[in-house]
Amino acid sequence: MNPRVSEISASLIREMHARKRVTSIDLGLGEPTLLPNPAHFEHAMRHVAKHGVKYSPNAGDPDLRRAIARHYRYPQMDGSENVCVTVGSQEAMYVALKTLLDPSRDELVVVEPAFPSYAKMATLEGAAVRSVAMREEDDFAFDGERIAAAIGERTRAIVFCSPCNPTARVVSREAADRLVRALERRIGEPIWLIHDEIYREQTFVDDAAYFGQRYPHTIVTNSLSKSNALTGLRLGWILGPRDFVAQAIKVHAWVTSCADTFAQQVALDVFRTPGALEEHAPWYRERREELLAILRSSGVPYVSPEGSFYACVRLPKGFCSIDAAHELIERYDVVAIPGAAFGPSMDGWLRLSWVAPPNQVRKGILRIADYCAAAAVSH
Amino acid sequence: MNPRVSEISASLIREMHARKRVTSIDLGLGEPTLLPNPAHFEHAMRHVAKHGVKYSPNAGDPDLRRAIARHYRYPQMDGSENVCVTVGSQEAMYVALKTLLDPSRDELVVVEPAFPSYAKMATLEGAAVRSVAMREEDDFAFDGERIAAAIGERTRAIVFCSPCNPTARVVSREAADRLVRALERRIGEPIWLIHDEIYREQTFVDDAAYFGQRYPHTIVTNSLSKSNALTGLRLGWILGPRDFVAQAIKVHAWVTSCADTFAQQVALDVFRTPGALEEHAPWYRERREELLAILRSSGVPYVSPEGSFYACVRLPKGFCSIDAAHELIERYDVVAIPGAAFGPSMDGWLRLSWVAPPNQVRKGILRIADYCAAAAVSH
Repeated sequence: MNPRVSEISASLIREMHARKRVTSIDLGLGEPTLLPNPAHFEHAMRHVAKHGVKYSPNAGDPDLRRAIARHYRYPQMDGSENVCVTVGSQEAMYVALKTLLDPSRDELVVVEPAFPSYAKMATLEGAAVRSVAMREEDDFAFDGERIAAAIGERTRAIVFCSPCNPTARVVSREAADRLVRALERRIGEPIWLIHDEIYREQTFVDDAAYFGQRYPHTIVTNSLSKSNALTGLRLGWILGPRDFVAQAIKVHAWVTSCADTFAQQVALDVFRTPGALEEHAPWYRERREELLAILRSSGVPYVSPEGSFYACVRLPKGFCSIDAAHELIERYDVVAIPGAAFGPSMDGWLRLSWVAPPNQVRKGILRIADYCAAAAVSH
Repeated sequence: MNPRVSEISASLIREMHARKRVTSIDLGLGEPTLLPNPAHFEHAMRHVAKHGVKYSPNAGDPDLRRAIARHYRYPQMDGSENVCVTVGSQEAMYVALKTLLDPSRDELVVVEPAFPSYAKMATLEGAAVRSVAMREEDDFAFDGERIAAAIGERTRAIVFCSPCNPTARVVSREAADRLVRALERRIGEPIWLIHDEIYREQTFVDDAAYFGQRYPHTIVTNSLSKSNALTGLRLGWILGPRDFVAQAIKVHAWVTSCADTFAQQVALDVFRTPGALEEHAPWYRERREELLAILRSSGVPYVSPEGSFYACVRLPKGFCSIDAAHELIERYDVVAIPGAAFGPSMDGWLRLSWVAPPNQVRKGILRIADYCAAAAVSH
């Protein structure tokens, strides 16, 4: 068998989920707990009754591609030919990396803390990976100059998620300007930026930067998974310059042929219904306010969430996040994801999600506070 | 960019489709013209209303995996752990090849005439490809000894489609026995067989061989696309030995995460409803009888279709299939796929599909007969 496959290590995140009990308070969840709006499915059902579910063009339904491009209106990528509809943002990222990286030569820079899939995908393709960690002392804020300084001779692309899973930080316009200026000063082949925007509709700050507006060599990946509670629908997209997208469509065509036509109809209804992409946004804003009150009263150090539906809390000094997550689940019946899953820079931290019912979130965070207090004493 | 991507050539099949006019008789279609049974969608809608569309486990819904394995009951692959649910059989094949082939060492043998995707996928992964063509003088019948004789030092797997797209031939039990005996006589690492069964429910002969029943190193790919007119639903699966499937699930997890939960519910309803997988089979049997009458009366030489919904017709000696397909569309307004799209062994042939309305199929074939007669005179 392919040795690159057998070398793929087990997922720490999945290991934590596997230990979950029926009684557990689950702050490890990586998907919304809301139900999706049935109106979008009813539209898709009407389409199926009339037209069946034929293959769509490889790149996706032309109307959907146009609707996506028009919604974001990123300069130089605002037409249907700038969009490839994919099987969720997972396939969007896989196709983007496979299209961009020459395994014999290129290196991907991953901005950490990061969801582990970027590095694992690049490794599966045989491309080199270099990581650059944002600093704990900056609350993991995106640091444009630090990212630019990590570029090596073979670097072809930089990938990051903003709003960020796991840190819940958002790239500010100032940090973005610094990174873009550094990239524009470089001589030679341009460095690509891959901006994973999957938590875009869960942005709680005003100065969020969208690289598609600022830098021509940007590739954006996104999906309906988090915005509309449609994780299982597997409907995402790549937005990028036309020449890049033309190549990406070829990869997508050989990997999955096309995205689900039914799911594309659901998406078309979302993009055609004014405000539908943000229909769950008020719920997240309210939950975040409650969360901040809980975190403040808990006494646990945390990074204030600017976006996504996560919050990172600091374990007492010297704690290993994997041990802590195991103890929390065994003795406190709380699932939290160890920071180590997102890179060594986050090993003293836990990633909590706050999409469970508010009383569960409260109970879970208070149990973590108890654990930290008790463990700090016994240390 | 990745040079392996830019080297992917344009698809001849797609080129033909792009030339289609509104008035054209389309015998190039690669998907059913039937509408799917709405009952399966209504089941999925009830599921979504109650549970939303959450991620499924990477390998698919456990009930669906079990239902698929139990339906086929191939020895050594009859449990849920032998199934990975995929995004159509396209992703099933992509994941199977990526899991199996070590690009630094392995070679894939493709049994031709073949759908071009197998070779293109392997090339995209950097693996070597060798093709072995079935013989025109045998009407492209699968020849087990000829296939076995093509195995080279680096061959790791052999891929074929039966019932076959494009030839409409089916591997007979006798041909299968010959191939399996030859593989079992070999010393060294076993050679894997990848049996693409996507046209399984369109089998019109009694002695079809299923390699999953006969050879332990078999990987089966299939989907609901052709059986239930669900091409656009993108719901397929890999069936294989447990150790292989465990590795394939890892690749699938990084490429697409999981198949669409809605589509998996549609599939669960198909597998749980007795006879649903074969609900369109009588329609194909009837259409095939009509087709045979048309072909016989047309005077055009053809290979009698044993399965799938294609039929291959012979052009007059010395004809190039690409030129013929172009002339047919320009001057006779008929879309047919040139045999050259499936390998050089089929260059004197056209692949016709017969899923269009019967009067269209009749008209199209008669126009092709006229073209052949006229062109043979002018040659």
